[in-house]
Amino acid sequence: MPITDRRKLLQAAAIAPLAAAAQTSAFAQNAPATKPPAEQAPAKDITRTLAHYIVSSHYEDLPANVRKEGVRTLLNWVGVAIGGSHHETVDIAVSALAPFSGPKQASLFGRTERFDVMNAAFLNGVSSHIFDYDDTHLKTIIHPAGPVASAILALAEMQPVSGKEFLNALVLGVETECRIGNSVYPEHYDVGWHITGTAGVFGAAAAAGKLLGLSEQQMVWALGLAASQPVGLRESFGSMNKSFNPGRAAANGIFAAILASKNYTSSDEMIEAKRGWANTISTRHDYREITEGLGTRYEAALNTYKPFACGIVMHPAIDAAVQLREENGLKADQIERVDLKVHPLVLELTGKKTPQAGLEGKFSIYHAVAVAIIEGAGGEKQFSDRAVRDPAVVALRAKVNPVVTQGIKPEQVDLTIVLKDGRTFHKFIQHAVGSLEVPMTDQQLEGKFTGLAEGILPVSRIRQVMDLCWKVEDIKDAADITRAGVAS
Amino acid sequence: MPITDRRKLLQAAAIAPLAAAAQTSAFAQNAPATKPPAEQAPAKDITRTLAHYIVSSHYEDLPANVRKEGVRTLLNWVGVAIGGSHHETVDIAVSALAPFSGPKQASLFGRTERFDVMNAAFLNGVSSHIFDYDDTHLKTIIHPAGPVASAILALAEMQPVSGKEFLNALVLGVETECRIGNSVYPEHYDVGWHITGTAGVFGAAAAAGKLLGLSEQQMVWALGLAASQPVGLRESFGSMNKSFNPGRAAANGIFAAILASKNYTSSDEMIEAKRGWANTISTRHDYREITEGLGTRYEAALNTYKPFACGIVMHPAIDAAVQLREENGLKADQIERVDLKVHPLVLELTGKKTPQAGLEGKFSIYHAVAVAIIEGAGGEKQFSDRAVRDPAVVALRAKVNPVVTQGIKPEQVDLTIVLKDGRTFHKFIQHAVGSLEVPMTDQQLEGKFTGLAEGILPVSRIRQVMDLCWKVEDIKDAADITRAGVAS
Repeated sequence: MPITDRRKLLQAAAIAPLAAAAQTSAFAQNAPATKPPAEQAPAKDITRTLAHYIVSSHYEDLPANVRKEGVRTLLNWVGVAIGGSHHETVDIAVSALAPFSGPKQASLFGRTERFDVMNAAFLNGVSSHIFDYDDTHLKTIIHPAGPVASAILALAEMQPVSGKEFLNALVLGVETECRIGNSVYPEHYDVGWHITGTAGVFGAAAAAGKLLGLSEQQMVWALGLAASQPVGLRESFGSMNKSFNPGRAAANGIFAAILASKNYTSSDEMIEAKRGWANTISTRHDYREITEGLGTRYEAALNTYKPFACGIVMHPAIDAAVQLREENGLKADQIERVDLKVHPLVLELTGKKTPQAGLEGKFSIYHAVAVAIIEGAGGEKQFSDRAVRDPAVVALRAKVNPVVTQGIKPEQVDLTIVLKDGRTFHKFIQHAVGSLEVPMTDQQLEGKFTGLAEGILPVSRIRQVMDLCWKVEDIKDAADITRAGVAS
Repeated sequence: MPITDRRKLLQAAAIAPLAAAAQTSAFAQNAPATKPPAEQAPAKDITRTLAHYIVSSHYEDLPANVRKEGVRTLLNWVGVAIGGSHHETVDIAVSALAPFSGPKQASLFGRTERFDVMNAAFLNGVSSHIFDYDDTHLKTIIHPAGPVASAILALAEMQPVSGKEFLNALVLGVETECRIGNSVYPEHYDVGWHITGTAGVFGAAAAAGKLLGLSEQQMVWALGLAASQPVGLRESFGSMNKSFNPGRAAANGIFAAILASKNYTSSDEMIEAKRGWANTISTRHDYREITEGLGTRYEAALNTYKPFACGIVMHPAIDAAVQLREENGLKADQIERVDLKVHPLVLELTGKKTPQAGLEGKFSIYHAVAVAIIEGAGGEKQFSDRAVRDPAVVALRAKVNPVVTQGIKPEQVDLTIVLKDGRTFHKFIQHAVGSLEVPMTDQQLEGKFTGLAEGILPVSRIRQVMDLCWKVEDIKDAADITRAGVAS
């Protein structure tokens, strides 16, 4: 495929889920349908209050559900980082940066090379975002783990840290970036910033600074130096530059924290000052999102994980297809036709009838439903060239009939499979798996992880890495996870 | 001095020249008094046109005056980089980054340590901006050399390049960042961005990419990856974070160019696309500033250099005082009083009557005039604690009488020295030395360089570095400059 075509497709791939999510807050039930009025919290001590919270919070303070979601965030992220690790984007970045890397302090998931902490964080961050398959904070469309986990897993290899402390830093980093994201979303995103990279650098700095044991004043400076290094524009979606953004945010956050740890100063009010971050980078901000309820309400508990390697808009249909297949043992050759009642966005974004390559399959509701019925999944493998060209899938996709239907919300689908023998099976999806309402189960997360890591790590090693993630709170050295996650 | 007081002073130090420059375009006669109307050039092929220009321009294409200004830009920058090299800001950054540095590919001016190219570029960029004494493109208040020279001097140590090619890359980098700055100034600056770091990263990427021999498409991507990494907010002025910005812009530009050189992709329209750089980062832009007259009109020819280590607003008075001293062999004990007619900004920004520390001296027109008469200069040494506490200076400053006078412009001063014997000496300054109208002479640049480098490099070495800069077009290896500029 010519590069320009691929670029357009990649761009559409990136936008599809976002457009859908932005179009309606229904994907994000925890977010208010409309933002509170523009009344502003006083712009006082915002950076300092946040810094105080970060440096004074302990693992023991985290509620059980937050710990649990932190563990799931970790496991999902490690899976996508391994999964993307042999994409040409990573190959290119590895070869470009190798001549400049410092001591071999940290590993690359799924690979054999080692780099200095900052370059390793960058590369793992790139790797984890390549498939657009990482975690999502639906209120802001931030992919929270990329900047944060990349940063502190690399740092943990250089400076040993217990699993509990590691998990605490991960949660605090996610909390920091999502709260700062909340404070400027959606205006900041609408104007063109890739919020994962702009808010993410704060998360990376907070988490790295926590592991480095920064004082409150040093954390204030780390956040200030982070504010000075936002990363990413939406225009880059569809190119390698998109996955660059969480990676560079991770590296920038470490850079900020490392300098602050030696008392490299910044302003004390970089987030809230008149010419500080929020005023400069967004037409609106609400500082209450940053400081209210710290330690009580956790954005980190609202993380979600994609079960399917494509835009959110197709998830309800894939979910329905997989469920009907499993409940009824359906085979492709039994099927007469598949009727879907869908929201208009589905055909607008994914209306491609005869995709020719894997990437095009991500924009074809016809392909997605067909391959889900035949293979019972919607992972990267189901959006490969192989899957898209599989004669059985090609035959079945011609029988898929999506119809835009009044009253169907974007997060819903009404799917009916009619068999040649006249039997019909019907499934209405209110919220697809992977939503906040129907989160992926731990078992589903393992299935996703395994699908991504197969062929890159041996099966026994895949099991070992997942086990280390699940029991991160019990391990003495968080770097055990990374050491198990490299290729040998 | 407590840290907060120092911070306020540093912040004022940074703002003083900017406020003055922003207040009136009289400092920048080449800039139109009002911007052209908001009619926009078509947002088409802006990034590509710029990339094409950068990759296809040769040293031989540069007019003589542009070459000459490039050489002066280089010499001035090397001087300030050496001068700042032992500031605690650099000490801190060196100690923080040393454990992460890659191969010792590049040197630090004025120091003995070596770092990988990107870290060295960062550190030299920090060093060169610490005294706010580097070069200024008055139309945008960009300090052009910081991001660009830091980047390519470091790169030149790793990958040898002739002096001619080096100078060409320097000019193209400066041209790139100043044109992009012009396209969004002043709105982009007014909202809070530190334009040296946000536009500077393009300059660094362009110059580094030129030395790396990028193709046009690779240069498009390098500019795109640069667009993804703006650096710096004005709120950081007054802290170490300010000099962080040109340094990080240099490193980010190299990072972008290095990745692009291996075909790491970005969008083809990162500057001009709907959700690209200009629309995201500024409320107004004029793409004609970027693409019109490329290769004909040179922003790089409009660079200026500060003769005095303080805000521009005091420059006319210092210039007058130094001139009268030299013309008349004046001694402090002859003087009855010094009368100055000044613009209101002078007292507003620099009205401190009894400064106690060197930094406070930068905000005292009384001190600046007194020390200029006694020492015949206004360099860093004249704004040291030593100078501010010198009894002769303290005695003379009490005799300095600035009076706000109708009709005096900010770039003017009317200064009269009355001696005890009744004689009077008078000087009216229309444009101070260092302005575009009265540029510093080569000899004055050498005097500034020498003042900055004394005590850091041996006198013979200072001479050698300056000679290498002057004859950069004749040297086979541009890295000779850096090798001569390190401490031994």
